[in-house]
Amino acid sequence: RFAADLDVLTFDHEHVPTAHLHALQAEEVVVRPGPHALPYATDKAVMRRGLRAAGIPLPRFAVIETPEELPEAVEAVGGWPVVLKTARGGYDGKGVWTAQGPDESADVFLARVPVVVEERVPFVRELAAVVARSPSGQAVSYPVVESVQRDGICVEVVAPAPGLSQETATVAQQLALEVAERVDVVGVLAVELFELADGRVLVNELAMRPHNSGHWSIDGAATSQFENHLRAVLDLPLGPPHAITPVTVMVNVLGGDLPELHSALRHVMARDPGVRVHLYGKTVRPGRKVGHVTVTGDDVDSLRSRAWHAADYISG
Amino acid sequence: RFAADLDVLTFDHEHVPTAHLHALQAEEVVVRPGPHALPYATDKAVMRRGLRAAGIPLPRFAVIETPEELPEAVEAVGGWPVVLKTARGGYDGKGVWTAQGPDESADVFLARVPVVVEERVPFVRELAAVVARSPSGQAVSYPVVESVQRDGICVEVVAPAPGLSQETATVAQQLALEVAERVDVVGVLAVELFELADGRVLVNELAMRPHNSGHWSIDGAATSQFENHLRAVLDLPLGPPHAITPVTVMVNVLGGDLPELHSALRHVMARDPGVRVHLYGKTVRPGRKVGHVTVTGDDVDSLRSRAWHAADYISG
Repeated sequence: RFAADLDVLTFDHEHVPTAHLHALQAEEVVVRPGPHALPYATDKAVMRRGLRAAGIPLPRFAVIETPEELPEAVEAVGGWPVVLKTARGGYDGKGVWTAQGPDESADVFLARVPVVVEERVPFVRELAAVVARSPSGQAVSYPVVESVQRDGICVEVVAPAPGLSQETATVAQQLALEVAERVDVVGVLAVELFELADGRVLVNELAMRPHNSGHWSIDGAATSQFENHLRAVLDLPLGPPHAITPVTVMVNVLGGDLPELHSALRHVMARDPGVRVHLYGKTVRPGRKVGHVTVTGDDVDSLRSRAWHAADYISG
Repeated sequence: RFAADLDVLTFDHEHVPTAHLHALQAEEVVVRPGPHALPYATDKAVMRRGLRAAGIPLPRFAVIETPEELPEAVEAVGGWPVVLKTARGGYDGKGVWTAQGPDESADVFLARVPVVVEERVPFVRELAAVVARSPSGQAVSYPVVESVQRDGICVEVVAPAPGLSQETATVAQQLALEVAERVDVVGVLAVELFELADGRVLVNELAMRPHNSGHWSIDGAATSQFENHLRAVLDLPLGPPHAITPVTVMVNVLGGDLPELHSALRHVMARDPGVRVHLYGKTVRPGRKVGHVTVTGDDVDSLRSRAWHAADYISG
């Protein structure tokens, strides 16, 4: 199964070589975020080592390069099962692998990049804390959201995370701000988190850009993550990140069998004028994120139902 | 004074020749709004005659072509003073002239287009009703706004119009919907209205496009007038036009002495993060509309004060 991802992984499309960016900086081109920050978003090993050194709570992990190092790494993170992640090149669940034992672990080394061996955290749900940070260090923090994953792909985001304690929300926001400062992010940083049964949160992944977990902000926040990303990069004062409605539900539109999405728009818009549909103009491939829908209001359950109906209908 | 506008008026830039559009239609190109509708927005004489025939309430008017016809026209609309308007080519107060007597009326005929002679209406304020209408006749009506003019230029819009009776609001919306249907508008139609002391409203002007009086909807309505304009032209279901905040105040940014507006952005954004600034990228000329600011909230007076501070600061 893992081998099927290898075309993606060996292409290594998320690993931005920073030499080019350093060269641009040397020619006095302004690069934001800077090349020193980017590896935190493109290399899971660099990110984990950096955050661990800063005292940020993470799942236990070890970074290895060969199958021979695996047994010691597994022991270091608490034993089987473990989560294996290629250090570079993964996205939407590709490059991430839960292994019950050694016989399920061989393929990961075919990607020829370092491998992160991580404890399998018994989290109760996934959260995301999105912040935007300007070159001068001004930062704003969006409400913490719940991110619902299916097969490693984010399918739904609820803002704010339902039933989240104020204490945990504050901890998550502080963590995200701390990471942004530590990494010296300019622009939007999304910090994906595991919420544990005891209320603690651990950092799962970073995304150093406007992120799926912040798309709700286009329709549900005073300033969208995209606007604040641009403001940050341009070193303009950041806009207020607060929600302008009690609840926003975002559901991704994943590619289905229909190559053309616009024909479904008429039905969706007519059936429920309150649904906001965003299509990205991408070529439709099964399971690919090709758009999202947002609904704002008061009641999470009815918003979820409306958003899912619209997204499913557009997917086909 | 009137002669100073002549370069604008003789250029006649708002008069869209419809022959081209008819030719496109003959070749089965979809033209929305259609060429039969456009003269209602580009020719004040055509508009008034058409609306009068439809029983829409208007100020008394007469259309003339030569100075010799003036005395009879003035008598027909109730005597001096009158408002003279070139039938085509005016905008932002250009091409509109209040004349106290015959000696102030000669210049208007230099424009060589028909002249509308209109009674000077003792209105208490100006309102605008913006609607969007699809090819199938579906229409939505935005909350009626108050439009504040200075020297014939809209400088401020408050949505909804403060203190407007529900009865007058409904009448204004119905009028706008009726005009849109009568004229067969596709897209946004802004109907500018005079509110009289007795609560009646008269149609002043039409604009068949997203209009200054609807700019507030970008930040203050569930669906902006621009989105609904595109939805209408594309024959997609229209989005809800309701306000998402109790009050929205929009103030235009008029060109001042500073050729560059962006340097003021930093100050405005930092001083009042709730202000939304929209700059159009137009070359700055004194008095030209080069952007607008919007503030949403509850209290009209404080919103007005904040919006004016920001707009004035950007203007320089």
